[in-house]
Amino acid sequence: MIAETIAIGNELISGSIVDTNSSFISRQFALFGLDVRYHTAVGDDFEDIQWALRTAGQRSDVAVICGGLGPTADDITTEAAARCLGTDLVLDETALEALRRRFQRMGLEMTPNNEKQARFPRGATVMINPWGSAAAFMIRNGRCLQFFLPGVPQELESLLLQEVIPRIQAEVHPGLFFLNRSLRIFGLSESKIDQMLSHINWNTDQVRLASLPHFPEIELKITSRGSTEAEARMALEEMEGRICRVLEDYIFAVDLGTMEGSIGELLRERGWRLAVAESCTGGLIGHRITQVSGSSDYFDRGFVTYSNRSKTELLGVPEDILQRYGAVSKPAAQAMARGARERSASHVGLATTGIAGPTGATPEKPVGTVFVAIDTAEASVCKHYQFRGDRNRIKTITAQVALDLLRRFLLGRMERGSHYSEVKNNG
Amino acid sequence: MIAETIAIGNELISGSIVDTNSSFISRQFALFGLDVRYHTAVGDDFEDIQWALRTAGQRSDVAVICGGLGPTADDITTEAAARCLGTDLVLDETALEALRRRFQRMGLEMTPNNEKQARFPRGATVMINPWGSAAAFMIRNGRCLQFFLPGVPQELESLLLQEVIPRIQAEVHPGLFFLNRSLRIFGLSESKIDQMLSHINWNTDQVRLASLPHFPEIELKITSRGSTEAEARMALEEMEGRICRVLEDYIFAVDLGTMEGSIGELLRERGWRLAVAESCTGGLIGHRITQVSGSSDYFDRGFVTYSNRSKTELLGVPEDILQRYGAVSKPAAQAMARGARERSASHVGLATTGIAGPTGATPEKPVGTVFVAIDTAEASVCKHYQFRGDRNRIKTITAQVALDLLRRFLLGRMERGSHYSEVKNNG
Repeated sequence: MIAETIAIGNELISGSIVDTNSSFISRQFALFGLDVRYHTAVGDDFEDIQWALRTAGQRSDVAVICGGLGPTADDITTEAAARCLGTDLVLDETALEALRRRFQRMGLEMTPNNEKQARFPRGATVMINPWGSAAAFMIRNGRCLQFFLPGVPQELESLLLQEVIPRIQAEVHPGLFFLNRSLRIFGLSESKIDQMLSHINWNTDQVRLASLPHFPEIELKITSRGSTEAEARMALEEMEGRICRVLEDYIFAVDLGTMEGSIGELLRERGWRLAVAESCTGGLIGHRITQVSGSSDYFDRGFVTYSNRSKTELLGVPEDILQRYGAVSKPAAQAMARGARERSASHVGLATTGIAGPTGATPEKPVGTVFVAIDTAEASVCKHYQFRGDRNRIKTITAQVALDLLRRFLLGRMERGSHYSEVKNNG
Repeated sequence: MIAETIAIGNELISGSIVDTNSSFISRQFALFGLDVRYHTAVGDDFEDIQWALRTAGQRSDVAVICGGLGPTADDITTEAAARCLGTDLVLDETALEALRRRFQRMGLEMTPNNEKQARFPRGATVMINPWGSAAAFMIRNGRCLQFFLPGVPQELESLLLQEVIPRIQAEVHPGLFFLNRSLRIFGLSESKIDQMLSHINWNTDQVRLASLPHFPEIELKITSRGSTEAEARMALEEMEGRICRVLEDYIFAVDLGTMEGSIGELLRERGWRLAVAESCTGGLIGHRITQVSGSSDYFDRGFVTYSNRSKTELLGVPEDILQRYGAVSKPAAQAMARGARERSASHVGLATTGIAGPTGATPEKPVGTVFVAIDTAEASVCKHYQFRGDRNRIKTITAQVALDLLRRFLLGRMERGSHYSEVKNNG
């Protein structure tokens, strides 16, 4: 089967906005074995839209068309679809009623141009959109089943997952149920994951795996299918179990979870308060920790100690250490973590110090030299890394490595390394 | 004239990466009056690439083709172009020599498959790529001038601006020089900018304006043309002057400048040190300030005071204030800014406190309630805002508003408001 996407809108071809819908559709289709072969974008133009629909009608089995379903005069996708098929537009009472209720709920008056959104090409199957005013519809054009969706990413994504994919799956694999789960991974490269999972078949009739890199993380997506939901669930959980046994500590969250969310849960479980001391990350770790609503329950404070004097004054880092080893050193990082913990009466301190560049490097400490330390009443841990990249990349990866180290520490699983390997024999 | 873009690569149609090149090309072309009409993406497939090139050859005057120029077996764009034109590939000695020098410079050995990157369809005009190994080329296909560029965004953007656009401009407007400048704006909506610049013609023979929103900022791009560079420069500067007279304080940077970079320059000029005290922004302001290399010259430290106790201990915010007015209040924000300045012996303190949500709101202080304060030995300023959106959006806009307030304070220009208006009669 051949699939394609068609994005419609002047704002796309003028470059005002980037089309992210097409790649979302491609990724979702790939998960059940349908590969997308063409992406096309055209403006709000009758001739160009009809050309795109006709071309898809000749070469593809499935097309998803996004955008141009709004109430205004420049939204012409529905009418272009009718013209392309040589048919007219007919009012859909269910869609009209859904629109009326929507306007009522929002306390707005419905104008005649809104009724336009309840008209569809004759023969279309209408799919009500609970998230917006533009209903979706499906119609056959030549060999091609064409799905028309609103261009707003949130609405498109919801409709695609809930309405479109089940219908295509019913065509491609009638009578099958599909489930999926995302494992969020840090500390392994894609090729290392490939290698560690080489004993697993990534693409069987029952389960399909896909790795999607989102720097600095990798999402490993499992999709399973079965003739019942229970069968699909069993296949999913069996595969998840096999992967977790191999990748265990590298999986920091599942589905929509985040690194900072997982850390929050671990701190909450222990009833611990966290304090951070940041030099090279400049506040980024505090920013990430506080992205979680309710983080004030376990995040006490952060010290952004950029100057040497602030490290001494706020954290009690001995001047002697700064003079002998420098601010970017193991003893300095450890003293920062201890100071953050002790001076805030928190249970755990997390510290970063490093050279984010491009300035500030020395022959012994090149750009990317980073120390991360964790301190509790019972333990003190410090790791030395050598990262590469520009300033922003080094800050990003330092924050992620520090958070992941804290997560592993809280789990009591520090033994296994990552592809961000430590520098040995560090000073 | 009709223009289109063709993006080539399996990683695009599979959704592994989002195509940002096409919208970049569209925006750049629009600046000199060439509107792009179609975006197409196909995989690394001879049949599909040839179809896309042939289609462009029939309907467009200019096409930019991106991707598939690498040294590996799956990079087949060049050969597909030759097949489409019914010609063969010939070695380009200049390109080969550039490749040899590149490998020498990097201390690498050149392998036979790298020579592939020095072969081009017979009749092509080759454009050497100083930023990578894939040279670009230009060739006529039917009515269409086709430009083939590497898909790496940085290389594509440089080659487009330096090689492709001057050649197209020479075709579209022979003998004309083009210049452009970006004015970076914060504190005005797009419609407000429209209104404030309504006395200016946005689209004349000499100058063209375009507004490009990048939340929370807006880029206003000026492009000018002239029969000499001096003429183009005069037109550019005349328009820039007219815009600056109206928008003056809202323009925080020019071209590749940033808000944090402008603040750094202002602090450096005065020889001032900055300390920040962050509650609801959680470290984001410190993170942004330290995105600038060399910021340690003027950024002394940051206090991420999330708990009430940390506000008292680290910044000396009186417990009395926290009890009477709460941590999210004008007196608390002012005491935070003063504490940050005094306790770090800095010249200026900047503080934020607010409710980022979704939890933590009260009837008097809904989600989005934010106070921003600035403190120096001579002055104390505090503003009260009411923002909307989710947690991340409120943090982002709070950090931006706080930085912009500091910028205006350092410039001595606090009088004019923004569309992020203050709440009046605040407690």
